[in-house]
Amino acid sequence: MNILIIGGGGVIGQKLGRALAARGELRGKAIAKITLADIADPAPIANSPVPVEAMTCNIADPASVAGCVTAETDVIYLLAAIVSAHAEEDLDAGLTINMMGTLNVLQRARALGTKPVLVFTSSIAVNGGEVPQPFTDHTGLNPQTSYGAQKAIGELLVTDFSRRNLIDGRGFRLPTISVRPGKPNRAASGFMSSIFREPLQGQTANCPVSPDFNHYYLSPRKCVENLIKGAELSAEDLVLNRCMPMPGRVWTIQQMVDAMTAVAGPEPARLITWEKQPELDPILDGWRMDIRAAKAENLGLEADASFEDNIRYFLEDDLPGA
Amino acid sequence: MNILIIGGGGVIGQKLGRALAARGELRGKAIAKITLADIADPAPIANSPVPVEAMTCNIADPASVAGCVTAETDVIYLLAAIVSAHAEEDLDAGLTINMMGTLNVLQRARALGTKPVLVFTSSIAVNGGEVPQPFTDHTGLNPQTSYGAQKAIGELLVTDFSRRNLIDGRGFRLPTISVRPGKPNRAASGFMSSIFREPLQGQTANCPVSPDFNHYYLSPRKCVENLIKGAELSAEDLVLNRCMPMPGRVWTIQQMVDAMTAVAGPEPARLITWEKQPELDPILDGWRMDIRAAKAENLGLEADASFEDNIRYFLEDDLPGA
Repeated sequence: MNILIIGGGGVIGQKLGRALAARGELRGKAIAKITLADIADPAPIANSPVPVEAMTCNIADPASVAGCVTAETDVIYLLAAIVSAHAEEDLDAGLTINMMGTLNVLQRARALGTKPVLVFTSSIAVNGGEVPQPFTDHTGLNPQTSYGAQKAIGELLVTDFSRRNLIDGRGFRLPTISVRPGKPNRAASGFMSSIFREPLQGQTANCPVSPDFNHYYLSPRKCVENLIKGAELSAEDLVLNRCMPMPGRVWTIQQMVDAMTAVAGPEPARLITWEKQPELDPILDGWRMDIRAAKAENLGLEADASFEDNIRYFLEDDLPGA
Repeated sequence: MNILIIGGGGVIGQKLGRALAARGELRGKAIAKITLADIADPAPIANSPVPVEAMTCNIADPASVAGCVTAETDVIYLLAAIVSAHAEEDLDAGLTINMMGTLNVLQRARALGTKPVLVFTSSIAVNGGEVPQPFTDHTGLNPQTSYGAQKAIGELLVTDFSRRNLIDGRGFRLPTISVRPGKPNRAASGFMSSIFREPLQGQTANCPVSPDFNHYYLSPRKCVENLIKGAELSAEDLVLNRCMPMPGRVWTIQQMVDAMTAVAGPEPARLITWEKQPELDPILDGWRMDIRAAKAENLGLEADASFEDNIRYFLEDDLPGA
């Protein structure tokens, strides 16, 4: 079992690599190697019990894709993306990476003829517009960002290449990940992690929305568990539509702040400032969160039980000395 | 008012060109020129009251697109496509024309900065899979052909480029067009016209499905009327989701044959043979037809009143000597 994680240098890619290495097997087979590929050399996995290779890969370049997707690759995780605010700012970068990059990976797998399992991360940003909520497994997609449009295009390609039996694909629309460790990226949802991550480390962070703003969340730990379960599903489980929402949970900012206070005491919440950032409004206004992930739940994927868990997972997984 | 019809050599493109020429105006402005562009030199419009230019254009080639989409182009009809059976046979041809070709036209319009109106023809082939019927304006797309997947991708691009105010796009999912004149093309739906077109001209034609097969149809005449209405809609009419089903009507093959008999007497129906063509089944099995085009109907687009009309339109428009 050779596993390739494209986007293996990112927060989820790194956590997924560590979880797979610790697990040692996938789809009933011992893991022979995990390859972490990313646009910049991804960090290796410390003390991995299985061999890990780190390499650069630019999915916009078919030759670069051919260097990491090989005849030995059994499972591909395609996590690499230009995220929301970045793709909104630079349409061409989003099209090149999110649309053409996805197609390049699919075309490489097709050329090899090895029908690898491919796990694609889409996003709840595919939802929006005038489509009435709730968003079920069968709801139309009317994304209100270019990132969402490009992810929806990726879903169509993954499903079509799977229908043609060129890959064995499956795609999951990730909820907003919180609490996301590390440095802020260019996602418009960045504050939904930073208002917990920074205060839990004694630093201030700004919340640009009001406390009653609600949204659809998942912890990194559950996300990684779901991505592993996602790879283990069979084509028969997935049926015709290979892409679906990943289970998440709706909370208001206030509920999340209260959960942080319940777990970590009253100090962190005092470090949150509440200044509006009007430049984020056009993106945030287009987001919708009444999402029903029935298919994925029936297939065994799970949301977090409470946001207190999300806070605890962050403290345990990302601030182990705290 | 300069109008460009890409795919202007096709059946609908030619009829649309003639209808626009006869009309003389669009969006409240006199038509200065109609340009018919196609992969092979399209036929000119005989006795056109407005200037008509015919030119070759390969939408897979950005330089070729730049030659026909110019700063003077006010309205673009993007009808060119690799059709269903062809795109199923040749995935790369479909991706090149249906996906990248659409993107090339959008990128050219973006580069010009002139925000032309763009009318995109999608297809009911975007519907299918495990998505429950009826298919409304807000139903998820799970196409079961690569043609359908590529059209769904085109819709997402048209809507996103419109949201970004780079074009003023609108897309319509065409019902199966019947009675389609001319020679058969490589669409799997070809028999849905040929079993009327050929018998009405004294020739045999084969029907590969049983008389109770039902599907969603529109006449070429109504399709052209709807495409003209579609160009006249304002961005305010269209709101966020720029793509929608075009109104059509569901009939069984038997109802359609009966309509032919009512209009043209019993002879033509006797020329239909009824032999199965199993190679078409995988495509036809994936099609769904319980489609509700509420948004388009509210915007004034229309289905045919009866299939007898479809037969009469064919006789009037395409066999005027008959």
